[in-house]
This record gives sequence, structure tokens and C-alpha cells, in this order.
Amino acid sequence: MASPRRIGMLIFPRLTQLDMTGPYEVLARLPNTTVDLVARTRDPVTTDRGMQIVPTTTYTDCPALGVVMVPGGPGQQDLMENEAALGFLRKQAASAKYVTSVCTGSLVLAAAGLLKGKRATSHWAAVDHLKLLGAIPVREKVVVDGNIVTGAGVTSGIDFALALAAILEGEAVAREIQLQIEYDPAPPFDCGSPQTAAPAILEAVKARLAKLSEERRVVAARVGKKLGV
Amino acid sequence: MASPRRIGMLIFPRLTQLDMTGPYEVLARLPNTTVDLVARTRDPVTTDRGMQIVPTTTYTDCPALGVVMVPGGPGQQDLMENEAALGFLRKQAASAKYVTSVCTGSLVLAAAGLLKGKRATSHWAAVDHLKLLGAIPVREKVVVDGNIVTGAGVTSGIDFALALAAILEGEAVAREIQLQIEYDPAPPFDCGSPQTAAPAILEAVKARLAKLSEERRVVAARVGKKLGV
Repeated sequence: MASPRRIGMLIFPRLTQLDMTGPYEVLARLPNTTVDLVARTRDPVTTDRGMQIVPTTTYTDCPALGVVMVPGGPGQQDLMENEAALGFLRKQAASAKYVTSVCTGSLVLAAAGLLKGKRATSHWAAVDHLKLLGAIPVREKVVVDGNIVTGAGVTSGIDFALALAAILEGEAVAREIQLQIEYDPAPPFDCGSPQTAAPAILEAVKARLAKLSEERRVVAARVGKKLGV
Repeated sequence: MASPRRIGMLIFPRLTQLDMTGPYEVLARLPNTTVDLVARTRDPVTTDRGMQIVPTTTYTDCPALGVVMVPGGPGQQDLMENEAALGFLRKQAASAKYVTSVCTGSLVLAAAGLLKGKRATSHWAAVDHLKLLGAIPVREKVVVDGNIVTGAGVTSGIDFALALAAILEGEAVAREIQLQIEYDPAPPFDCGSPQTAAPAILEAVKARLAKLSEERRVVAARVGKKLGV
């Protein structure tokens, strides 16, 4: 029997938990696969809405991963200038089969210098910032460029993970997982993207995100300069 | 200012984490709202795929909740005969504004005697077992019967939570949350329900779930007898 596939997901303070927990639910169902939650230490990590999740390993202890995944969330901005996190990602990416992200996690991959000239996506409110880090922003749900697989914002992580499951194990396995998790979505409203939301809703959300977006832009510009973008 | 709305989600060993984490991501974004994770003790709870989540309070310490929510997962079968859990739910349900569940969490509500004669849903592979507990099974994504709101399997928790958010705070707030979490789903395959999955996929998943389903049926029948169904 082949040695198990190792998937590692970074977790960090002020992570948006659904960026990680959605893909986790899909990918942990793959055969012969372990999913690790990797953090700086083994202390519980507090997400942006207060939920606490326990890491299974650390940057230092984590073995070589077949798939590395970075979720997003407000805390991603600290990670973008955190040498321990960026060093961990660079080291893992050198041998991983797939380097992946959900939501603003792609900005962290880009800050590690892993997305230069690569097509990638992110949360709709953040995808343009990828340019500042040398990546090519694409407004799609799931973007595959070589061994880089990125998903759009938060709940897009489920679409991302099913697409990745199909890449890793074939369509039949991915379809079985989709049925197990009853992913037959029926959103009560048609307003999950800036294209479909009513202008007033879009403006309200943009206003709420404005401060965070501007902070993110400043960090991305600063890191991009260091990367020579 | 009104005192904050308190939402409490039960967590327990072998919970399917996305049943809880999907709704959490939506409901924790409601204004003036706290979300508690309630367990028997404050020790980290291990979900069915290994992720560990830290409770915020216990059955004993949890204050009166405005909304109580029970997620599902294989561990739900232990909960259905656990007097501490059922007593907690009965006590909270007596004063809660809404009593809710996702996936097989509805079987726990039913085991607590809270769904007698009520329309409710569950995971597609479990919904029929509601009958054994005196509830009226409905194969829909989200079912509202009075102050009982139930969602179907796993990822349906996101649809459920947006519908509940609209009930609690109005459509505009729910729509804003939907846009924030970019819930504009694009499943890579059309096989998220028994109606759309290919027969071979459905049979494979049914075979994998057979043992668990039969165990669940036996527990539901036993508990239903005690409830006088």
C-alpha cells in the first residue's frame, strides 16, 4: 500500500475558519489521506469570529506535505510578513505536489514568492491585490495553474476542494464525497458575488470591508516591493 | 441597546464539523450576537475526521440561549441516548426563540422529544429515521415549522444558516453575509443529492454508509419506543 497522502493546512490567529473547515470536510474524506493543521505552536488557534481550533503539528515538526493549503482571513495580513510562516511555505512548496489556497490565503502564497507570473484567485474583495505581489489575478471560483490551485472567497473552498479531490483521486471519488456531504447548494438569495448582489448590498459590504482592504493593499504593496514586483 | 442574542451550538465527539462550522461562519456575523459552542466539558472535542475544536461553555454553565442548534455526525447516535445532552436541549428549548439543527442533528432534537408532530429534515440518508421518533420527515434543504428550523445534510447548513439569518435579522443582513462569504456556489459536479447522483455513485455511498445507517435506525427505533411513538 502506498504511504498515505499528507495534506497540511496552515492555521493562524484571525483565520476565517470556513476557508479551512470547508476544504477539510472534503479532503479528509479522500482515501489513504491524513490532514494536518499546521501552526506556529500547538496552542489552540483563535479564528476571526472566536472559534478555537487545535493544531496537529507545527512549522518545525510538520513532515513533508504532498499538498499544502493556506486559508485566508484578516490574520493573513500578519502572515504575509511573518518569516516563520513564509519560510515554512517555501520549504514545503519545494517538494509538494500541489500548492494551494482558499480566499485571501493566495496573498500569503504570493508573499512567499510562490505565485510570480502565476494565474490565481482570491476573495472578490482581495483578488486585485494579487497583482501587487506579481501574480495574475483571475476572477474565477477555482484556478489551476500548473501545480498551483487557488479558490475564491470563503465558501468557494468547497468548490475548490472538490475540484482538487478530482485532480488527486479522480472524478468518481470526488462525486462520492459531494454526495456524502450533500453539496447540492440552494442559496436562499442570489447575491453571493459582486456581479449578482444588489448595488446597495455591495456598497454596504464594501464599506464594512474598506479599512481591512486598505490595510491589505498597503501590506501587499510593501511585500511586493521586497519581492521586486 | 438590547442584550446580545445568544446562539448555542452543541458540539460532541464524532461531530461532522462542517455541519457546525458552516452555520457558525454565517451566524457569528449577525449583529449583536454571540455564538457559544456547548459541550459536556470544556476539553477539546474531536470530530469524526479528527479535527479538534474547543468548547466555550458546558451544558451546566451555558446561560439561556435565544437559538439552540444541534449539528450531526456519527456521534449523534450516542447523543440520542445521553440524558445530559437531552436534558440540556429540553431545558434550553423551553425558553429559546428557535430550536434548530443541521444534518442528523434533527434526530437528536427528536430524541429529546422536541419534534413530535413537527415537519423536519435531515441528511438524505437519515431523513426517514425521523419518523421513528414521531417527526414528519421532509426532503427539503431547510424546513421551518413554527420555531423549529432544520437543515439537510452537512453543506446544507450554509443554506440553513442564511435562511435563519433572514428570519432573525431580515433579508438585507442575510444578503450582506452571503456576499461577504462569497456564497455563489459552483459545484464541479451535479451529484450532491440522491436525485442527481449517478446510480453507481449513489450505490457506492449507500454501501459505505450502510452500517452506520442501520445502527442509527436501531437507535432511533429504540428511542422512539421510549417516547411512545
